[in-house]
Formats: sequence, C-alpha cells, structure tokens
Amino acid sequence: MDWGLFLTFLTTCGAAAATGAMFQPGEWYAALKKPSWTPPNWLFPVAWTTLYLFMAFAAMRVAQVPDAGQALAFWGLQIAFNTLWTPVFFGLRRMRAAMIVMVGLWLSVALTTVAFFQVDLVAGLLFLPYLAWVTVAGALNFSVLRLNTSYST
Amino acid sequence: MDWGLFLTFLTTCGAAAATGAMFQPGEWYAALKKPSWTPPNWLFPVAWTTLYLFMAFAAMRVAQVPDAGQALAFWGLQIAFNTLWTPVFFGLRRMRAAMIVMVGLWLSVALTTVAFFQVDLVAGLLFLPYLAWVTVAGALNFSVLRLNTSYST
Repeated sequence: MDWGLFLTFLTTCGAAAATGAMFQPGEWYAALKKPSWTPPNWLFPVAWTTLYLFMAFAAMRVAQVPDAGQALAFWGLQIAFNTLWTPVFFGLRRMRAAMIVMVGLWLSVALTTVAFFQVDLVAGLLFLPYLAWVTVAGALNFSVLRLNTSYST
Repeated sequence: MDWGLFLTFLTTCGAAAATGAMFQPGEWYAALKKPSWTPPNWLFPVAWTTLYLFMAFAAMRVAQVPDAGQALAFWGLQIAFNTLWTPVFFGLRRMRAAMIVMVGLWLSVALTTVAFFQVDLVAGLLFLPYLAWVTVAGALNFSVLRLNTSYST
C-alpha cells in the first residue's frame, strides 16, 4: 500500500465526484422519460463511491510498476471524461453532447482496463465493474436521449 | 517522440478544453467587475492552447521514464481540477466554490511541476508557464470574487 499514490488518485476521483454533488439531477431529470431498467436513484452514489475506491486502488497498484506510463495515461484520460460528463448532462442538459462524452468515457475506460490487465491482474479486475457500470450509464444516456427528443439539444 | 502517449495526454487535455467551448463566459462574465490587470479575452484561448500542448508533451516525456508513477498521478490530479473549474465558475457561476477548485488546481500544478523536475528537466520547464498562468487565473478568480460580492454564492 502506497498511501501517497492512493490518496493522490483518490483526490483526483474526488474532483470528478464533486461534479455529482454540484450538478444535481433535480426536477429536470426526474421529469424525463426513462427506460424500465433505469437503476434506482440511491444506487448511483453507492456505485460511484465503490468504483472511485476501486479505480484509485487499481491506479495505485499500476503506478508502482515500472513502465506503466501508457496505462496511467489512459487512467488520466478516463477521469477527465468522467469529470466532464456530469456538467454537460446535468449542467447544460445537452444529452447529445453528453452522449459524445460518454462514448469517450467508455472507450477510455475500456483502454484503461486492457492496459491495466497487461500490467497487473488485480488492477484489471478492479476495473471490470467500472466498465460494466459505464456500459449501463451509456445505454441509459442513449435511451434517455431517444425517449426525450423534444428536450434534447 | 511517443505518439501513442502524446495523443493520449493531448486527448485528455482536449476533454478539459471542451469545458471552455461549452461553458462560455458570456454576458454574465462581461458584466462582472474585474481588476485592471485582467488579461484580454483573446489571450485565454491562446494561452490555454499553448499550455495544453506543453503539458501533454511534458507528460509524454515523463511517462517514458520508469518509476514516474507519482509524477503521472499528480498530472492526472491537475487535469481533473482543470476540467472541473470551468463548469463550476462559468456554468454554476459559483465563484466561491470555483475558488476552492482553483486552490486545488494551483496546488496540483505545483506538485506536478516539482515531481516533473525530479524526473525530467524539460518536462519541469514546460510546466512553469502553466504554473505562472494558474497563479494569474487564481488571482483573477479571487479578485472577481471580492469585487462582485453581491453575485457570489
């Protein structure tokens, strides 16, 4: 356990998570038509808290391996897209632009997962729930975009 | 030159830069009282384009060095704060919350600069203009916050 690395990555996740606290779904999101399989609201903060802990711990493990530069570059890419999505969707309410960000997020999480597996098995495994959740989030973004065409910009 | 690394870091900067395109200053910012030394509007995109190229190139150099995990962790931290600031300031118009993000950004840029200097001289030097610009941006955020107390939340 390298606490310096872990806390650096966890603080980075905290910056991304701050968007969720500051850009709330509110009445706008509540009023949107959503698919039947939409996860309940309480699950989102629970899932994200778990995933942020997993991704910070995974990055800490990878950062301790020499020559993990590309893997850590992908980690930085996914956390930037992660930080960007919430303000675009809940702040600007631009569901179409958010979908583009979501595609970038999904691809960058997939790239990070593959790169982490090549460096450290545990780190790769810790990224699988994140990849699964972002797949659901992407499907939800897409579905909400299609079901609410009159709102989308 | 490692193009895979450079383009990964540059795309990450692109995600951060997208906030500047989507969360425009607009009339609200134009109407704010600003200090006499406020840089002209045209300088901001010019400065940021240069700085994003510098920080992507610097990160590419550092990522090629073994055991640069902590330095790259700080790089990821600063780009997350960088992505967060614009939506908080120009999107939510929360100047006080943005000031807290700015303190995080300044500290993370300073930590990255120090860590980069320890790994690679060129990478450290490429971060100095960024540290200088963020110092100006922080002073501007603080000054605008003080000059427009009736708006601040």
